[in-house]
Amino acid sequence: MSSALDRPQQTSPVSAPPDGTLLSSRELDPTDHVIRLSSGIEIGGREIVLMAGPCAVEDVDQLVLAAETVSAGGARILRGGAYKPRSSPYSFQGLGRRGLLMLRSTADRLGMAMVTEVVAPEDVPLVADYADILQIGARNMANYRLLEEAGRSMRPVLLKRGLGSTIDELLLAAEYVLAQGNPDVALCERGIRTFETAMRFTLDIGAIPILKQRTRLPVVLDPSHAAGAAELVGPLARAGIAAGADALLVEVHPNPREALCDGAQSLGPRQFAQLAKEVGRVAAAVDRRTG
Amino acid sequence: MSSALDRPQQTSPVSAPPDGTLLSSRELDPTDHVIRLSSGIEIGGREIVLMAGPCAVEDVDQLVLAAETVSAGGARILRGGAYKPRSSPYSFQGLGRRGLLMLRSTADRLGMAMVTEVVAPEDVPLVADYADILQIGARNMANYRLLEEAGRSMRPVLLKRGLGSTIDELLLAAEYVLAQGNPDVALCERGIRTFETAMRFTLDIGAIPILKQRTRLPVVLDPSHAAGAAELVGPLARAGIAAGADALLVEVHPNPREALCDGAQSLGPRQFAQLAKEVGRVAAAVDRRTG
Amino acid sequence: MSSALDRPQQTSPVSAPPDGTLLSSRELDPTDHVIRLSSGIEIGGREIVLMAGPCAVEDVDQLVLAAETVSAGGARILRGGAYKPRSSPYSFQGLGRRGLLMLRSTADRLGMAMVTEVVAPEDVPLVADYADILQIGARNMANYRLLEEAGRSMRPVLLKRGLGSTIDELLLAAEYVLAQGNPDVALCERGIRTFETAMRFTLDIGAIPILKQRTRLPVVLDPSHAAGAAELVGPLARAGIAAGADALLVEVHPNPREALCDGAQSLGPRQFAQLAKEVGRVAAAVDRRTG
Amino acid sequence: MSSALDRPQQTSPVSAPPDGTLLSSRELDPTDHVIRLSSGIEIGGREIVLMAGPCAVEDVDQLVLAAETVSAGGARILRGGAYKPRSSPYSFQGLGRRGLLMLRSTADRLGMAMVTEVVAPEDVPLVADYADILQIGARNMANYRLLEEAGRSMRPVLLKRGLGSTIDELLLAAEYVLAQGNPDVALCERGIRTFETAMRFTLDIGAIPILKQRTRLPVVLDPSHAAGAAELVGPLARAGIAAGADALLVEVHPNPREALCDGAQSLGPRQFAQLAKEVGRVAAAVDRRTG
Repeated sequence: MSSALDRPQQTSPVSAPPDGTLLSSRELDPTDHVIRLSSGIEIGGREIVLMAGPCAVEDVDQLVLAAETVSAGGARILRGGAYKPRSSPYSFQGLGRRGLLMLRSTADRLGMAMVTEVVAPEDVPLVADYADILQIGARNMANYRLLEEAGRSMRPVLLKRGLGSTIDELLLAAEYVLAQGNPDVALCERGIRTFETAMRFTLDIGAIPILKQRTRLPVVLDPSHAAGAAELVGPLARAGIAAGADALLVEVHPNPREALCDGAQSLGPRQFAQLAKEVGRVAAAVDRRTG
Repeated sequence: MSSALDRPQQTSPVSAPPDGTLLSSRELDPTDHVIRLSSGIEIGGREIVLMAGPCAVEDVDQLVLAAETVSAGGARILRGGAYKPRSSPYSFQGLGRRGLLMLRSTADRLGMAMVTEVVAPEDVPLVADYADILQIGARNMANYRLLEEAGRSMRPVLLKRGLGSTIDELLLAAEYVLAQGNPDVALCERGIRTFETAMRFTLDIGAIPILKQRTRLPVVLDPSHAAGAAELVGPLARAGIAAGADALLVEVHPNPREALCDGAQSLGPRQFAQLAKEVGRVAAAVDRRTG
Repeated sequence: MSSALDRPQQTSPVSAPPDGTLLSSRELDPTDHVIRLSSGIEIGGREIVLMAGPCAVEDVDQLVLAAETVSAGGARILRGGAYKPRSSPYSFQGLGRRGLLMLRSTADRLGMAMVTEVVAPEDVPLVADYADILQIGARNMANYRLLEEAGRSMRPVLLKRGLGSTIDELLLAAEYVLAQGNPDVALCERGIRTFETAMRFTLDIGAIPILKQRTRLPVVLDPSHAAGAAELVGPLARAGIAAGADALLVEVHPNPREALCDGAQSLGPRQFAQLAKEVGRVAAAVDRRTG
Repeated sequence: MSSALDRPQQTSPVSAPPDGTLLSSRELDPTDHVIRLSSGIEIGGREIVLMAGPCAVEDVDQLVLAAETVSAGGARILRGGAYKPRSSPYSFQGLGRRGLLMLRSTADRLGMAMVTEVVAPEDVPLVADYADILQIGARNMANYRLLEEAGRSMRPVLLKRGLGSTIDELLLAAEYVLAQGNPDVALCERGIRTFETAMRFTLDIGAIPILKQRTRLPVVLDPSHAAGAAELVGPLARAGIAAGADALLVEVHPNPREALCDGAQSLGPRQFAQLAKEVGRVAAAVDRRTG
């Protein structure tokens, strides 16, 4: 990672498009941008991609069980947190490098790709060594140094919308990655903060068609964090596919009641299989398919 | 309408359920409540019901054209405003009784049912003479005198969620109708106020499964007011059906560009036919059907 | 009250100002509008007016005690609810006409003016017979028939901002009253719905200077409903006066722990005396004074 | 900066308080915590501290003019951005190390302390060499690696509330600094995202008394970012002091119309002098004083 101290004025390798147009805009290029992973998986093509796995990697047994579950259910990409940004400094913060190793080897054994979160610019090179996709979490959407570093890694980036961020700001955050010459950004809606407390966050379902209209980038839906409760994940996932999402990011745990984080919203094995089946039917109704 | 002056302490014909349970709750009765209209239409059954028509009744030609359009597209219930609650006193306020007559005769000729808004307690008896369903708009969700009067009319009530109201408050507002002994309330999600301005309102898609889980009442989605733009209505409508809504309330105008209100979000005839077709496919994917 | 059935298209006695300007605007007339009550009290002049009293009138003893307390503390206007709009139909709804009588006689005996809420158009003539000021509550801010009827009564109107309503919408709601030829509207900020739940509502303190800049109308702050907790009422009241409010509307109960509604946010006698003293000091610091 | 790769599980030098109590809580210690700077300035004592200066350091002339202006108006701490987190990668990003040097020498010459923002963990040691106080901006409130690094620097930290963050989350973010053994955190309210667009953000004035009640930490108000317009800064600043804030953070520019960022909300020299005078009067009314 190069030192930023002497270059606070960003010198991006890609020149800014004229007149305030964004690099992600359909005005520059109307075609859909498809992210192609080395494993042959495509995000943003006709197939709806399921990314699933535990909130946090806790130990080998939990991860392997979760991965086998989601793979059997049709997930092509394994998700799991090795570095966890937690609201409280006293909460479990993840297994770090050990978690990365476990995620990589588990994904490889099952023929899956792998996505995991990176929380600091200094960690990008290491995480990029292990992961197929770098996730930038909602709390870091406006961590511009992290976005630039992720851009420079040339790994695909899954960028989550901040919980108090507008759609316009999400697109500008994506631009920090794209301006580094990295074209592979997937935009993720995961719920916003509103006055309604019946769900953990309010899923902004309208963001999906708006993002699809304005940008070429694939759009991912995370129904788990918005729901905050397992029984709402299915309806939200179906709604997202019906509205045009290209992929889902779902929390699954072999035994949700024992999860170290986000247990309430994690699906168990049978619930995930059910969700995958239901999502497949809705996908067909909008001329898409699941894997 | 009886005078309220001497009975501010409500004396409802139905006694309150014990322990804070609501009359609408699945705890009292787990079965779905189905609203049966005299025309044989059922809201809350297996069939997804389409309610469609213009924001405001403007004149006979506009209304008849709109009604024929939506009937041909599969709508079973005609919607249209005769009394319009407008933010500004200087905006078009509706045709009043003349509009009611036009709605009733047009619906009858096409074999449709009819829903229209009522904005004041004193108008309830008149509107109930013409309409099959009384709509209480978002701005009047907490107009409790109006809710009581609508309850006493024994007409089915389509109750819209206030744009700053919680799901809990929507259920309590419904209780004002139910407590009058009127069991026929349909709850309508139409978008809430949030910081995001890319859409006119943020559609709270999660409200649909939450309402279905907590209450026995049918749930209606109004994708038009949330969207504020015609091209977003289709994706939101599909999402709503995928999430479990029982009916849709859609604004359609024979010529949206000439509409006196809400033109930007009104569908033209071809757009509505397309929406009805797409919604039918998604309905089938969740084991429902359209008419 | 005239029947609205044949005149849904509003025919206001005052003609609309040109070009979208509002009757309340400083562009039409830059001077402050002062509401003058028959008792010699002025709202919108140099003196900060304190309006205080119980949330709901419960019985004579409670009302008289509360009124004597707030009168001793410097309040010039007695507030109290005879008709209460409650979220649940099973909550206490007020004493109605009996409450109005008690409020009027108590205010007269102490030489105070009196403000109380009206919740339905049909009740306006009766409430206007008793009250010096008609209060339109937050839940009824967009109850346009009620606003028109209040306008026709020619009584001063205290109009509360809806909890999901913008400042622009509050000004348009006021216009419904002004367009009836009634110039005496006071605008009341009482907190809006946001994601923050540490207070009952988020007090939009910025609304006060914005309303003072855009309109000629007096601006009132209700710190009690926003706070939801007695210990926050004082700081919010001081902040409102420092920001330019012309009056305060404060809930006071002789014994808050026994209140039938809003006990948590009601001040007891000693707390109100303390608040009045503190507010007086801040008023002096912005070249105003309390009574 | 130590590498975080092998210690994702935080090992703080301070042990967590029992039972979910926070280190900042008045339950652990009821006294006010006062931050003492080497220059003799105290934040959180009886004196209200004014921190003022330009949004971004643009050049020496602009900075010196702004600093002389705010010093003359009574500001004891110079603020200014050398590293700017901007929504768009194509906006001015600050002068970096050159800006730090200019801020330090200007502050020294005028006998002021200096606060400036740090946006990445790797920059903390450098910024801590120049600044008396490290500012963590709203967009980085949940950048936990940055908070930890700022904690380890042992410099006082001015922590701004995220625009979509709750008061509880602000307190947990502060805990990341405190848990490093650094007791000097000042909490800053700067407005939150709500549906109201009349101001840039909605200033949550109630956060000030709530923070003062729950924590021992000094509370700072930034009226400039919330206002988004110079004419609203004064009323908000007065309101904040009346509500109990210990300090103000105000944007001042020698010529706001030529500012490279935030010109609309920056005060010119005369406006700042006026604000300082008005704030002094309100401070006296709540038994505080300005410098």
